[in-house]
Amino acid sequence: MEMNQNMLPSYRRADTEMTSLIFQLKKLIMQPSISAKNEGLDECAYIVNEMMHKAGINSTVYKINTKIPPIVYGEIQSKCNPKAKTLLFYNHYDVQPIDPIQAWSENPFGGNIKGNKIFGRGASDDKGELVTRIKAVECILKEKGDVPCNIKFFVEGEEEIGSPNIKRYIQMLKHKIYADAIIWEFGYIDTKNRPIINLGMKGMLYIQLLAYGASVPLHSSLAVLVKNPAWNLVKALVTLWDDKAGTILIKDWYNEAKGFRKEELDFVANQPIFDEIEFKTKYKIGRFLGDIKGANVRTALAGKPTCNISSITTGELQQNEIRTVIPSVAKANIDFRLVPAMEPQKQFERLGNHLKQHGFGSIHLKYIQGVKPSRTPPSHPFVRIARNSAEKSFGANAIINLSSAGSGPMHYFSEMFRCPCIALGCTSIYANIHSYDEYARIDLLNKGIKCIVSIIESMSE
Amino acid sequence: MEMNQNMLPSYRRADTEMTSLIFQLKKLIMQPSISAKNEGLDECAYIVNEMMHKAGINSTVYKINTKIPPIVYGEIQSKCNPKAKTLLFYNHYDVQPIDPIQAWSENPFGGNIKGNKIFGRGASDDKGELVTRIKAVECILKEKGDVPCNIKFFVEGEEEIGSPNIKRYIQMLKHKIYADAIIWEFGYIDTKNRPIINLGMKGMLYIQLLAYGASVPLHSSLAVLVKNPAWNLVKALVTLWDDKAGTILIKDWYNEAKGFRKEELDFVANQPIFDEIEFKTKYKIGRFLGDIKGANVRTALAGKPTCNISSITTGELQQNEIRTVIPSVAKANIDFRLVPAMEPQKQFERLGNHLKQHGFGSIHLKYIQGVKPSRTPPSHPFVRIARNSAEKSFGANAIINLSSAGSGPMHYFSEMFRCPCIALGCTSIYANIHSYDEYARIDLLNKGIKCIVSIIESMSE
Repeated sequence: MEMNQNMLPSYRRADTEMTSLIFQLKKLIMQPSISAKNEGLDECAYIVNEMMHKAGINSTVYKINTKIPPIVYGEIQSKCNPKAKTLLFYNHYDVQPIDPIQAWSENPFGGNIKGNKIFGRGASDDKGELVTRIKAVECILKEKGDVPCNIKFFVEGEEEIGSPNIKRYIQMLKHKIYADAIIWEFGYIDTKNRPIINLGMKGMLYIQLLAYGASVPLHSSLAVLVKNPAWNLVKALVTLWDDKAGTILIKDWYNEAKGFRKEELDFVANQPIFDEIEFKTKYKIGRFLGDIKGANVRTALAGKPTCNISSITTGELQQNEIRTVIPSVAKANIDFRLVPAMEPQKQFERLGNHLKQHGFGSIHLKYIQGVKPSRTPPSHPFVRIARNSAEKSFGANAIINLSSAGSGPMHYFSEMFRCPCIALGCTSIYANIHSYDEYARIDLLNKGIKCIVSIIESMSE
Repeated sequence: MEMNQNMLPSYRRADTEMTSLIFQLKKLIMQPSISAKNEGLDECAYIVNEMMHKAGINSTVYKINTKIPPIVYGEIQSKCNPKAKTLLFYNHYDVQPIDPIQAWSENPFGGNIKGNKIFGRGASDDKGELVTRIKAVECILKEKGDVPCNIKFFVEGEEEIGSPNIKRYIQMLKHKIYADAIIWEFGYIDTKNRPIINLGMKGMLYIQLLAYGASVPLHSSLAVLVKNPAWNLVKALVTLWDDKAGTILIKDWYNEAKGFRKEELDFVANQPIFDEIEFKTKYKIGRFLGDIKGANVRTALAGKPTCNISSITTGELQQNEIRTVIPSVAKANIDFRLVPAMEPQKQFERLGNHLKQHGFGSIHLKYIQGVKPSRTPPSHPFVRIARNSAEKSFGANAIINLSSAGSGPMHYFSEMFRCPCIALGCTSIYANIHSYDEYARIDLLNKGIKCIVSIIESMSE
């Protein structure tokens, strides 16, 4: 592919801005911002706000109330292009906790540089991604004094705890944040330096089942008389999921689930997304559910709904304790991954009906979290722009993934504006995100700026 | 019933010995002896040894090795009666832990007296019961200089943790501890001051099921591919127990289970053992398993095997944590209560076969504890002796319970000597054993001494 001569200066500018970028990233890493502990969030939001401001972006810190972490909203309008499209970046300034601290060999809030790596919590997820995007806009502004399309930033502070207030912030700013295309917060670079472009995320329904017995735990000699709620719970659980085939047994569960079209399936079949052998060896797994292999594995990851027991808790014991008790309550946490166009609330109702119809009406069903799925078709022109930009910047073929196997609040934006939303970034898949010694690769940060510059420049076309 | 004139002096002696008895019990309470924490056990054993010695009983502290708490073995032969029968007392000097300490309004190791109660951990279970038995022998010796039958004491220090070494001690002393009849460590007095005589205990098989998945917990987005061991576990569990009828579904499980003979059933039907209404109200229970009522409830408590889930642990969560994970292991602890003549080891093999035959051969089955059941027929002459003694001493009709619903190591003795073994004591059913503010009622301690005196004297007949 040929380089568009018009974008060359901003693109090269990324190289001269690397010292500044590393300084900015280090500054962000040095400000702890752990949402799970409500630690340093306002402080970090104001650092982001200041960075955007210095880059030439109009930015504001919005805060619903004193208890909810703020969002940083930034925008810049194109002066030269009155009919410009709008590109929105979704990122977050909060990070995962750092425990266990003993596991780190680097200061998690130090931002130390060793060779090609800068270490610290959030170095990749998501402070690293965020600075490349701000820097990309800055490069263009410094070269041209204008942007070729309108640009918006929505940077939240609760991503790592499930974005409990993102809906309220979107509602609050809905007249401002309209977009024609969205770049999601993250994106991996695989071991062969190939950028992976994710076109979607699954949705999720997270529920709890609670079976109740006697008012207090009783001595198990009374099990001749007293119902143990654990039995009721396990009997209900086995009606939900066929763990041989990997299918959900709840009536009408798949009604709205869209399969993939032929061209999408061809896509999946040919993308080197998942190394089956490596995975099975690493985690000591003999066979996959339904004994699927090859393209079917990738199709399942991108497009199959799940029903998973995340925990069962009843009769809590100490390590190696021998207790003989009839528990008074038995709980199970279950996460269902959803695919387009399944709706968490509707599936929740189906689950409730299922339990009633199977004689488990006495089990209490609790809705804990619901996230809708999101998926952008691979044929959308924005996917081509992203792909071309990524391949040019990273110097390798991009891998297109129809959907992440995971979930995230992508749909809030993509659904509201009925626009494409894709995840594309510069994080090495071995960057230890959510773990100890998280780092960002400096060469990838540089390519990440260039990739975003290229996307922005392409939005003018 | 008429008082046998011959036993009157020893019987009355109990009254003059009460100050001494309370002093002894207080001394034992003030020595913590918590087997679960391996705390104060040797010290307490030596106090018991000293007490027996002072009472005129030949006693010795036996210790298998430095790590295992000792037993105190005591004996005294009848001089006047060369063909005397032998009566053995099984008791224990260890106690339950005291946590939560904040719940106590009395010092758990104080032995404080308030009115008719002496407070402290072990006041009833089992230090109170133990001192009445030593004191009963002392009363007889002080009055007569001899005992009418041979008497033995086997006092262990691990009853509250499941008597893991009792078998080794019995083996070690098997040539000494032969007995014609055994009095078990405990016995309740109901709210109407009626002594309850237990003729047996159920056995127990305690096992753990372990289902394994991947080598580490995995992100639940991978549930499209990876087997979750929790599903396998719950599917195995539901094949074990019909929780509506309260029956075990394992092949041949009941083969050796003895029902009750007609005269035994008549017994159960007429004994006021269990207050159904009070129990249901207290624990908010609508109906019992299989909707049983009245005599059927008492028959079930005394004679029905059970299968109970004591705990399930998989994907351990913090309180209110929302985690999306495929656990790498799922565990269930199950206790089966056994009735004569079921054998733990044989039932364990049946369970193993059941799992294999139902396709759960991959689940690891772990034997944790096995205790055989024990039951003395109500027609045995020793039961008449115990009943007469109890009714005379406590001044109320005794209640005969064919078997406790609970389990204990009774069978080690009763089986070895093929002799009757019954549980009869002086503990108020509201004495808070295993809980906070445990106490002993002083009037019942006094009656307890008299009851044991009476039994010993009756053994000469």
